[in-house]
Amino acid sequence: MAVEIIDGGINAPAGFKTCGLRAGIKEGKTNKDMAMIYSQVPANVAGTFTRNIVKAAPVKWDSKVVFEEGTAQAVVINVAVANASTGLPGMKDAEDTAEYAAKKLGLKKENVLVASTGVIGFRLPMDKIKSGIDMLVPALSEERQAALDAANAILTTDTHKKEIAVTFEIDGKKATIGAMCKGSGMIHPNMGTMLSFITTDVDIDKDLLQKTLREVVSKTFNMVSVDGDTSTNDTCLILANGLLKNKKIEGEGKDLDEFKAALYTVAEFLAKNIAKDGEGATRLFTAHVVGAPDYETARILAKSIITSNLTKAAIFGRDANCGRIMCAMGYSGAEFDPDKTDVTIKSSEGSIKLVENGLNTDFSEEEALKILTPDEITAECDIKSGEFEATAWGCDLTYDYVKINADYRS
Amino acid sequence: MAVEIIDGGINAPAGFKTCGLRAGIKEGKTNKDMAMIYSQVPANVAGTFTRNIVKAAPVKWDSKVVFEEGTAQAVVINVAVANASTGLPGMKDAEDTAEYAAKKLGLKKENVLVASTGVIGFRLPMDKIKSGIDMLVPALSEERQAALDAANAILTTDTHKKEIAVTFEIDGKKATIGAMCKGSGMIHPNMGTMLSFITTDVDIDKDLLQKTLREVVSKTFNMVSVDGDTSTNDTCLILANGLLKNKKIEGEGKDLDEFKAALYTVAEFLAKNIAKDGEGATRLFTAHVVGAPDYETARILAKSIITSNLTKAAIFGRDANCGRIMCAMGYSGAEFDPDKTDVTIKSSEGSIKLVENGLNTDFSEEEALKILTPDEITAECDIKSGEFEATAWGCDLTYDYVKINADYRS
Repeated sequence: MAVEIIDGGINAPAGFKTCGLRAGIKEGKTNKDMAMIYSQVPANVAGTFTRNIVKAAPVKWDSKVVFEEGTAQAVVINVAVANASTGLPGMKDAEDTAEYAAKKLGLKKENVLVASTGVIGFRLPMDKIKSGIDMLVPALSEERQAALDAANAILTTDTHKKEIAVTFEIDGKKATIGAMCKGSGMIHPNMGTMLSFITTDVDIDKDLLQKTLREVVSKTFNMVSVDGDTSTNDTCLILANGLLKNKKIEGEGKDLDEFKAALYTVAEFLAKNIAKDGEGATRLFTAHVVGAPDYETARILAKSIITSNLTKAAIFGRDANCGRIMCAMGYSGAEFDPDKTDVTIKSSEGSIKLVENGLNTDFSEEEALKILTPDEITAECDIKSGEFEATAWGCDLTYDYVKINADYRS
Repeated sequence: MAVEIIDGGINAPAGFKTCGLRAGIKEGKTNKDMAMIYSQVPANVAGTFTRNIVKAAPVKWDSKVVFEEGTAQAVVINVAVANASTGLPGMKDAEDTAEYAAKKLGLKKENVLVASTGVIGFRLPMDKIKSGIDMLVPALSEERQAALDAANAILTTDTHKKEIAVTFEIDGKKATIGAMCKGSGMIHPNMGTMLSFITTDVDIDKDLLQKTLREVVSKTFNMVSVDGDTSTNDTCLILANGLLKNKKIEGEGKDLDEFKAALYTVAEFLAKNIAKDGEGATRLFTAHVVGAPDYETARILAKSIITSNLTKAAIFGRDANCGRIMCAMGYSGAEFDPDKTDVTIKSSEGSIKLVENGLNTDFSEEEALKILTPDEITAECDIKSGEFEATAWGCDLTYDYVKINADYRS
């Protein structure tokens, strides 16, 4: 059985309940701003986190839970305030949030994860967080709507929710992965993405879960860039509660391959959607580097292309300015031979080779404009030096990105 | 005698003539697009060049002149076409340009430097380049207007010319440095800046000139970022023709210190002006990191702050979003303790501490808005771990940056 996308979200796997509602942290009157994920039984947990030195308090708390405790049963999420650059008082707030939720759920605080996103440098409004938790616990549900509520509650400047659920076969049984995330700005993940939550009913060894998550994240979330800014709060968490009752996955083999393929499908879907819904974005811009002597070279080149402001502005303007792609590859730090490089632009309108062996082809500007018009554009760069390839996802740089970020806090 | 800024430009030092005029390379009917610098006698030459792997043909040609020949007598500059990603034919065009100018000036081609800026991936229109040189040679002049013409001819999306001349004392004589540059977009220099030309009448050893230029460039041009994109054509050239007849500077000492101070004044002035005139910019944004354990740490932190799209957009919006500054420091790669860090914003309207020991102060938003309003803003970040400091210059990220770059080629 191949990986199949189903109608569902973060609470699709057996034993997971979720909810999302308004606790009053975010300005305005109608926006949801808190969500909760709950597993009926303790779940093995793995996570990847920002590499920014300025780590938000929730990142520090969750690292402890993931790497010292190894199991968790709930996640409390709030938007509007990031609880970053808040020092020891902020750490206390993160811990108090976990402790308060744990008490309400009958758990110990070390099994409760927390995640925050929003403005850096301000304390969490703990009264609102606590009254939010009071409302969240009784609202937990397995219903489809409860996943939608959660997926909507974690958004900030995102224009639409990002969620997915897939089924696949493990040990003769139908396994499920559910997931949701938020992205939009300050997106240039390094070990994790803004906030991404994944659940599954598969029974898998904790260390193997961590290793598999890292591997998948490095090729998906970590290959996205909206603006080159690595957030203080980047977090990707996966909870595996084992309720599928499969023979526990403890090493290499068919079951692990199936699980990894399903997790990759989920993570790639979310990563692409983060890029496509980047702040102010009008286009998903994919860089696909092929013919590399090793994966690392392909990865560095692909990520440099989608991070370049000049390339991103050209994609917004539907300008076949292939020189900017060559330039971004050139300063990436990766070794390659520009004089052997081909650049081809592809979309639903067709494909056109702009650069061949480092030189501009005599391409038709009219044809290029047509191909650059749809809302998903791919640049394929062949450096003709090997068999490795990598893909990175970004978006165009638009007036609205500037508008959103010129006065984010108000 | 201290370094004194005088009214003058690239042809201010003894023995230098310049000119700038329209050769018809650039679209439109009135824009100047070619310039020439000429020294009456052979000058020692030093240069710093882009570290982009995709190096434009003029960069390759000039590297040969600087590092193999060591002396030069003329520079031919064109805008509109960068002669980058043009392969061997492009190299031939660069060499032909040098050769044609050399013939007209009675020099050998190895003593003629060339510089190009503009669209990547297209060949130089050699007929226009040659007829341009035909016009440039008889137009060479020591007059003030000839420096203005040259400074204007090398601009692309720059909104105003960037030139300076200074006098200072060497060996009891009044020495002069003149300079001009262009910047605006694709500005994140790494060993050199977009196109920067410096002349002096000082007699200085060639290797010492190269060493001094590198040192000054690393603290000035290389500390500027407009958009994080390192150009294929970044070039900084200095010609020292020795007509001051000073006792040749051949090592450490007072004369070298004076020369270095003057060169620093010139390079810092131009670097700041490149940042301030960044594409679409409305504000010069300076990051000044102090209290660092070493220069490298301060340098990395300062440059990361002024490169962050999110910080740049906040500066455009006059938003005291100090969390973005902390975030940009955090992902820079440099080691520091966020919990010991202070961030203060300064301008002609005063100064205000936004972050103290990693925590937001209870600052007045009204006061912060007032301080963020002038067109030159400085963020001073004290990491309280030593005595080293560094300064980097950038600009805000605006709607106009996107507009200019969404359709640069048309």
